[in-house]
Amino acid sequence: MRQPVVGVMGPGEQASALEVETAYELGRHLAATGWIVLTGGRHVGVMDAVSRGAKSAGGLVVGILPTRDRTQVSEAVDIAIVTEMGQARNAINVLSSDVVIACGMGLGTASEVALALKAGKLVVLLRVSPESQAFFHQFGLSHLKIADDVAQAIMLLRQHLDQP
Amino acid sequence: MRQPVVGVMGPGEQASALEVETAYELGRHLAATGWIVLTGGRHVGVMDAVSRGAKSAGGLVVGILPTRDRTQVSEAVDIAIVTEMGQARNAINVLSSDVVIACGMGLGTASEVALALKAGKLVVLLRVSPESQAFFHQFGLSHLKIADDVAQAIMLLRQHLDQP
Amino acid sequence: MRQPVVGVMGPGEQASALEVETAYELGRHLAATGWIVLTGGRHVGVMDAVSRGAKSAGGLVVGILPTRDRTQVSEAVDIAIVTEMGQARNAINVLSSDVVIACGMGLGTASEVALALKAGKLVVLLRVSPESQAFFHQFGLSHLKIADDVAQAIMLLRQHLDQP
Amino acid sequence: MRQPVVGVMGPGEQASALEVETAYELGRHLAATGWIVLTGGRHVGVMDAVSRGAKSAGGLVVGILPTRDRTQVSEAVDIAIVTEMGQARNAINVLSSDVVIACGMGLGTASEVALALKAGKLVVLLRVSPESQAFFHQFGLSHLKIADDVAQAIMLLRQHLDQP
Repeated sequence: MRQPVVGVMGPGEQASALEVETAYELGRHLAATGWIVLTGGRHVGVMDAVSRGAKSAGGLVVGILPTRDRTQVSEAVDIAIVTEMGQARNAINVLSSDVVIACGMGLGTASEVALALKAGKLVVLLRVSPESQAFFHQFGLSHLKIADDVAQAIMLLRQHLDQP
Repeated sequence: MRQPVVGVMGPGEQASALEVETAYELGRHLAATGWIVLTGGRHVGVMDAVSRGAKSAGGLVVGILPTRDRTQVSEAVDIAIVTEMGQARNAINVLSSDVVIACGMGLGTASEVALALKAGKLVVLLRVSPESQAFFHQFGLSHLKIADDVAQAIMLLRQHLDQP
Repeated sequence: MRQPVVGVMGPGEQASALEVETAYELGRHLAATGWIVLTGGRHVGVMDAVSRGAKSAGGLVVGILPTRDRTQVSEAVDIAIVTEMGQARNAINVLSSDVVIACGMGLGTASEVALALKAGKLVVLLRVSPESQAFFHQFGLSHLKIADDVAQAIMLLRQHLDQP
Repeated sequence: MRQPVVGVMGPGEQASALEVETAYELGRHLAATGWIVLTGGRHVGVMDAVSRGAKSAGGLVVGILPTRDRTQVSEAVDIAIVTEMGQARNAINVLSSDVVIACGMGLGTASEVALALKAGKLVVLLRVSPESQAFFHQFGLSHLKIADDVAQAIMLLRQHLDQP
């Protein structure tokens, strides 16, 4: 059986220090649990931090890149998928993930959360504003969850991925 | 010079009667102004209504389809672009539009508004909830506008498209 | 009923003078017949020539662009679809065409002919080498045709598009 | 440093017994050399055989899938990238590979070889007809190689991937 793939989405250049720190810790826990981490692959923000966190715990990291520019790839990515499709690759990010965590919220992240919910994936929101929570809650979907911290996010994933 | 292309996004099967009615009226005005209407191409909801509205005023309608299933195409579409890319085609919808109007808000629409704002396109929100307005406003972008009705939406587009 | 869309593929920067001249003549005849011309949209080679030919006869031209760079668009394109997907847009080119003509053969063209045949589209090869004919003939498909000149290509399309 | 990724392309349902056998042996050698194997991910033909071969030697296998249908995935795929983009995913296959081997030739394979050559990737043709060799040779590219057997293919890859 294939290992579960957890997609972690979040701001790139605009990520806050708290989001980056949270993403690193999240990556460390995901890898420690034996899950593959999937990101947008670039060497900035949440993508980079969660990849480095996963790497620090010996995890496997898949990065789905928007361009052919290899200098933009996070050093912590083990497998780089080169789409050359710009933001259209966001759809691939979520379809290739068994579950999705948003750590912080940018416009790219918003597109990924929306597409993940539309595709019926479990989505966990972490470190997002009340406005972001209210926006996605208005669609009335039970596969949208809010986590207050990394521990709770991991628990929500575990409940979902371990169910028979 | 090419005619301006106005992308109109909105809910499909879940569209409300008000959204459908608004979309039809919007399509009629867009076509009357001489603008090309671009949609997600299917024969449901806002996509279909804005296309039929544009058609009723002699406009040209481009539909960017998610699948190869030709039975799903709105009859009011003149030019059907077949992507067979599912929701990844949402990125094409917004990149191919000079400006974007969201009429109502679904998850697909949310992804399109997010990607359009990220791509720097003018986005006009029409018939969306206060939660949706608050969500997109938090990114602090001056190219996001709110319209109360079709007339105001047309005026906002005109200001943008007519500027030298 | 929508007008038939004829996709015309061929070399870009590497197109020969004969290919460019043939493409222009082809575009003129396609438009005169009332068919929409679809190309890869850029302002070079066969794409540009067939678009200009179609334009000269009052036709409608759709260009499916690989990048967001608007300076690369042929001036004869009426409707520019911006994919920002590089060569992955070749799949869209052929799926959006009712029939495909290759005028000359480059590597991009080869990918388009292969995908068009795979999708079951009628493909007409015009101005291609014996090696190119032999290559595609080895798959034994009845929807692959060879034309010696523009007149024969138009006749083959007409037979196909006019059948009930 | 990331491990090299070798993309192996070839016929699916139409693969011959010799192509399947060759693909299995190829996968075994690629994995034994420490290279990651990348394929189109489905459970048929060359894709499946090379994946099973790589697996038998303890290798890591990445599959880039055309649809969301998880029942179509080869059991030997470790990491399934779900594009839901049909044949447009062929562009991702080659861009994500450091080098490409075609084992046999179908229409999908033809599109991949063409796009790989266009992207400047080393392409090795194995078990392809004289017509296929002649077709791709006419573009006059030095990064196209022919191998007579798996051993020669591996040697050609090694020369390319080991160069400083």
